[in-house]
Amino acid sequence: MVKAGVLGATGSVGQRFILLLAEHPEFEIHALGASSRSAGKAYKDAVTWKQTALLPEVARGIKVEECKPEGKFAECDVVFSGLDSDYAGEIEKAFVNAGKAVISNAKNYRREPEVPLVVPIVNPEHLSVVEKKVADAEKAGQQKPGFLVCISNCSTAGLVAPLKPLVEKYGPIDALTTTTLQAISGAGFSPGVSGIDVLDNIVPYIGGEEEKMEWETRKILGHPNSDNTAFELLDHDKMKVSAQCNRVAVSDGHTECISFRFANRPAPSVEDIKKTMKEYVCDASKLGCPSAPKQTIHVLEEQDRPQPRLDRDRDAGYGVSVGRVREDPVLDFKMVVLSHNTVIGAAGAGILIAEILKAKNVI
Amino acid sequence: MVKAGVLGATGSVGQRFILLLAEHPEFEIHALGASSRSAGKAYKDAVTWKQTALLPEVARGIKVEECKPEGKFAECDVVFSGLDSDYAGEIEKAFVNAGKAVISNAKNYRREPEVPLVVPIVNPEHLSVVEKKVADAEKAGQQKPGFLVCISNCSTAGLVAPLKPLVEKYGPIDALTTTTLQAISGAGFSPGVSGIDVLDNIVPYIGGEEEKMEWETRKILGHPNSDNTAFELLDHDKMKVSAQCNRVAVSDGHTECISFRFANRPAPSVEDIKKTMKEYVCDASKLGCPSAPKQTIHVLEEQDRPQPRLDRDRDAGYGVSVGRVREDPVLDFKMVVLSHNTVIGAAGAGILIAEILKAKNVI
Amino acid sequence: MVKAGVLGATGSVGQRFILLLAEHPEFEIHALGASSRSAGKAYKDAVTWKQTALLPEVARGIKVEECKPEGKFAECDVVFSGLDSDYAGEIEKAFVNAGKAVISNAKNYRREPEVPLVVPIVNPEHLSVVEKKVADAEKAGQQKPGFLVCISNCSTAGLVAPLKPLVEKYGPIDALTTTTLQAISGAGFSPGVSGIDVLDNIVPYIGGEEEKMEWETRKILGHPNSDNTAFELLDHDKMKVSAQCNRVAVSDGHTECISFRFANRPAPSVEDIKKTMKEYVCDASKLGCPSAPKQTIHVLEEQDRPQPRLDRDRDAGYGVSVGRVREDPVLDFKMVVLSHNTVIGAAGAGILIAEILKAKNVI
Amino acid sequence: MVKAGVLGATGSVGQRFILLLAEHPEFEIHALGASSRSAGKAYKDAVTWKQTALLPEVARGIKVEECKPEGKFAECDVVFSGLDSDYAGEIEKAFVNAGKAVISNAKNYRREPEVPLVVPIVNPEHLSVVEKKVADAEKAGQQKPGFLVCISNCSTAGLVAPLKPLVEKYGPIDALTTTTLQAISGAGFSPGVSGIDVLDNIVPYIGGEEEKMEWETRKILGHPNSDNTAFELLDHDKMKVSAQCNRVAVSDGHTECISFRFANRPAPSVEDIKKTMKEYVCDASKLGCPSAPKQTIHVLEEQDRPQPRLDRDRDAGYGVSVGRVREDPVLDFKMVVLSHNTVIGAAGAGILIAEILKAKNVI
Repeated sequence: MVKAGVLGATGSVGQRFILLLAEHPEFEIHALGASSRSAGKAYKDAVTWKQTALLPEVARGIKVEECKPEGKFAECDVVFSGLDSDYAGEIEKAFVNAGKAVISNAKNYRREPEVPLVVPIVNPEHLSVVEKKVADAEKAGQQKPGFLVCISNCSTAGLVAPLKPLVEKYGPIDALTTTTLQAISGAGFSPGVSGIDVLDNIVPYIGGEEEKMEWETRKILGHPNSDNTAFELLDHDKMKVSAQCNRVAVSDGHTECISFRFANRPAPSVEDIKKTMKEYVCDASKLGCPSAPKQTIHVLEEQDRPQPRLDRDRDAGYGVSVGRVREDPVLDFKMVVLSHNTVIGAAGAGILIAEILKAKNVI
Repeated sequence: MVKAGVLGATGSVGQRFILLLAEHPEFEIHALGASSRSAGKAYKDAVTWKQTALLPEVARGIKVEECKPEGKFAECDVVFSGLDSDYAGEIEKAFVNAGKAVISNAKNYRREPEVPLVVPIVNPEHLSVVEKKVADAEKAGQQKPGFLVCISNCSTAGLVAPLKPLVEKYGPIDALTTTTLQAISGAGFSPGVSGIDVLDNIVPYIGGEEEKMEWETRKILGHPNSDNTAFELLDHDKMKVSAQCNRVAVSDGHTECISFRFANRPAPSVEDIKKTMKEYVCDASKLGCPSAPKQTIHVLEEQDRPQPRLDRDRDAGYGVSVGRVREDPVLDFKMVVLSHNTVIGAAGAGILIAEILKAKNVI
Repeated sequence: MVKAGVLGATGSVGQRFILLLAEHPEFEIHALGASSRSAGKAYKDAVTWKQTALLPEVARGIKVEECKPEGKFAECDVVFSGLDSDYAGEIEKAFVNAGKAVISNAKNYRREPEVPLVVPIVNPEHLSVVEKKVADAEKAGQQKPGFLVCISNCSTAGLVAPLKPLVEKYGPIDALTTTTLQAISGAGFSPGVSGIDVLDNIVPYIGGEEEKMEWETRKILGHPNSDNTAFELLDHDKMKVSAQCNRVAVSDGHTECISFRFANRPAPSVEDIKKTMKEYVCDASKLGCPSAPKQTIHVLEEQDRPQPRLDRDRDAGYGVSVGRVREDPVLDFKMVVLSHNTVIGAAGAGILIAEILKAKNVI
Repeated sequence: MVKAGVLGATGSVGQRFILLLAEHPEFEIHALGASSRSAGKAYKDAVTWKQTALLPEVARGIKVEECKPEGKFAECDVVFSGLDSDYAGEIEKAFVNAGKAVISNAKNYRREPEVPLVVPIVNPEHLSVVEKKVADAEKAGQQKPGFLVCISNCSTAGLVAPLKPLVEKYGPIDALTTTTLQAISGAGFSPGVSGIDVLDNIVPYIGGEEEKMEWETRKILGHPNSDNTAFELLDHDKMKVSAQCNRVAVSDGHTECISFRFANRPAPSVEDIKKTMKEYVCDASKLGCPSAPKQTIHVLEEQDRPQPRLDRDRDAGYGVSVGRVREDPVLDFKMVVLSHNTVIGAAGAGILIAEILKAKNVI
């Protein structure tokens, strides 16, 4: 079993990591880290558990440690970080410097050129940069080096998933718009989104979210450089992305109304792109990763789907649902995309990235 | 006082007409029409009243009639129709043929070339077609003719309001996209939207709504023909409109995330268009209509506004709020528009249209 | 495998029966019945599927039949009825007369003296009346007789579950009050509860619900008569029950704030009754029924639990959660009870009743 | 005009005080106090305004002061406190000691024997204690003394309103139970109730609320002592009160399902108590106070009312609605009470108390 540590274990993302690890066939929880206020306590006493599933038996008694690459953490094969961005910068750096494989949900290092920003059902090939780093060290007889992989922003994950097979088959998308209707779970729960803000209401603003979507999309759909050491973004002029983000009264599941245009003419047909999305099998599925979706993209034909309450749990949240695929009077196509923000958009993505790294013997 | 009748008086739109008329300084409720099942009953016994304001005293005892241009209806100066489209076609035609001025919320005749489709804070000049019809009859010594004016779809009203002053000043918009987050009150309440569809959920589809928005926008921002007898649509090639409509858990107030591009280059600046929207005074306000908004378009500077719960009641629902005006990476600008769907998007629009017609001595 | 039929298969309760049967280790779906409008169609074409789980593969292609004890239904070992009460009366009678074992969610026959009204984690001993009927026929060499078992009202199920072990141990409860906060799923979905009724709102009334709770409680906590052929209610004077029922914006899970007084003095302590509830093991669990809860009653110590979103899925909805057990200034004790209305309060109860009947060789 | 000050002016209760004062015919805003962080700023810059009505013009430019009985506050005739209980203790004492009339929404001094705890539509006669204090000082030729009046807890206000006329007419209530379904506005908004706690959920616990309701009810329905200097509670044995409090997804308006028993036999009839509640005219109405409700208690006959969204705004929130009055199998009667928690349960109550004091020349 791969020994896994969780940083920020008492927070909302940390709790999700623990739920997913507790029943994992390949990973086991080995270390849990939180603030010094929690350190020393049994996890069950340190956490305010707010999940619909019960606190897993296996985690209840684990003694929480401080977030340092020592003690139990020193023995971990992989470390998942659910840290707040206020703390993630320093702590994650210390873990990487200490030789740890860190998979982080924090935003701090996403824009670093040499750090892969990965949606595991979309661009696992970006992991080649860390594969190479590890392989180079091995060849040189050096100690296994630490590295960091960043999980994308939750709303970016849903956006790029159906676009990946389309870009592969039909070439670049030169204009892309998305209007999001985002769930409140993405904002955590202490306090997270205030009830009065989402009761009989919409908040048409999420701080920093639009910038993240517009930038991350171009990194994720871009490529490693020729010597496989860093990433080059798609040029903004070649792929214009515009996001409008809204917070709505949904617990889990981000809905996005997107439209896009291919650079190449003539554009494919609606039936073409539906077929291409349906047939897409992500690499994680090909590698047989335990959490990989059976169906990466569910293309729904009912005119009023996908809906978050009904469709967010497809493939345990690792599959993405697409519906209402149709021509767009302004760009080429418009459609509705639904993804599970706390699974493929956060903790679940981290787990699936680790499964891919394990399948490739990087961890 | 202008004698007003209401068709479909027991429905959700009819109830709103009654609320607005009950306290109106110029209009009085003279006739209430509903199905034969309700006819003969006192209004209070025929209606299942579901408004937050109490059933107005003045309406309680009125005897409901069938929807025929007879009896009390024959004495009305103006007739407001909140009929379902299943019934509106025949009944409204009968009223017009009987010489009545009918202002309808139904969709049936919106596409008729000679029928004005009016958002009263946007294109009251389209009423010139009925003004002319009435004036011509008067000149010819004929009896005052009946006519029909259609209220636009609720989500169209919010979309075109801020665009009107922009188009007037900066010329045509050649591409326009809107993603709507629509309130449930627009769907009535017997049964209206099912609770299970909007609890922890989004429904990314409203039957016929996208087509209405894409079509009505081009009629409302278009012009009467040269002899002032019918309307010509803006050509689709000159103004591409794309709508994506969603139903969300909001009681009143449609939020729309829109983006648009002007045909003329260079485009104005963000500050330009904010100033133009702020300074816009709709004709109804200039005419001193009692329900006209003091401020037609509220341009909000707070980064997280407009929000339906907080902003829908500006100017009693006759004003429209706009926020987050900013450049758009794909088209020229993007912004968030909020309008009150049952006021400026339905019954309230009908009342304000009638006030304009009265100010112009057409009724 | 036991061959199971479902009456009212396209409705909300019917869909739940199908979900539960599709993965059942002992039962298989053999016949699906619906209105003549649906009969003849494949189930997938007849149903508007509104569950969060996908329509099970095994049910998709089954041809829907009319609700008559013929054809495939004639071959069924047990028939689950999710019929509306408008139709249940006649149809269920026909099935019983044709020798079928019918387990019904409809209210029609709950008050029949000879029909068991069963919450399977509470009073499975009431099934002795049908056991006897079947055994008597067998002894007499007659054909296996049909019989009916009724599932209780959803809110009654949650109310009586924690009371059963208390009454067994401490004797009768002579006064019981409950104020319910009921989920909307109980009202089905075509149209079910209107969205406008539960958005930023409470409806303090559910037709017939309070009467059902006040009456059913006295049958369920009562006993079969001495010759095991019918049921005698607890006398109203000996057990006064008062219910106040509210519909709230919750999808699944009925919350009840209850208080009660024991007839015997002195009353037990808070710790006594918590212990008694914790230690209760329902007969279905003892019999090893596949759906029986591991823990029948979860007694929560956190001061703000149970909560429907977090706790409704304990033991897949077959377990009941109790919290805030404390002394009551007016009666003896007050506490909060949460039960899953569509599982232990409806379809799930039917399945578990059938499992018990199978374990006892009645079906 | 009476000069009014507001303590805690930037908080949710303070904002409500400002809204009510801004349009008041007798009071004017003279001083606004907040934390030292806000002091010195214009109110519009110090506040995050979260009301559905716009920030009143009259308050925008007022310079916020620290909460000390100096400067503008020294000139105030009455001071309304919306302070958090963390700060209210010291500050309110300082204001009273400085001779100010303070009306407070904080809980700190509610249990002080000499401090009136007042629901203005229920027990304004309790103000006699401060009337006497002021009159005694006047007689003795002393300076006008400061005093404090406490507003009750929001859910207590709704509970006692309909009981007052019943107790007056039929004598004491000896047992009273209430299960509340409370709105989120009562918890403020920074952060207030977390969205994830009320989306598809109920929280069956509000810290300290049940104790407040059980205690405050006995003070409010009690009486001043014989020399009119302090209050004596109703004895617990003579009036047993039991509360169960829940937080639900409602913005404004507390719903309570209550039941009660009179000490005297025979009890009145349902029609008796409905008539008595309907005919009740509170003293504030008799005194002609501007905010006093036209109808103190609205007794609704529709079987599914009151509902918070439809009924909370009766008499601008100063009237209380009662429905479903019926016999209770356990106590004598049960019924549903709805009151507006931020009006008659908080800031509005403070304003109406001040109006009564003004009508009696105490301020």
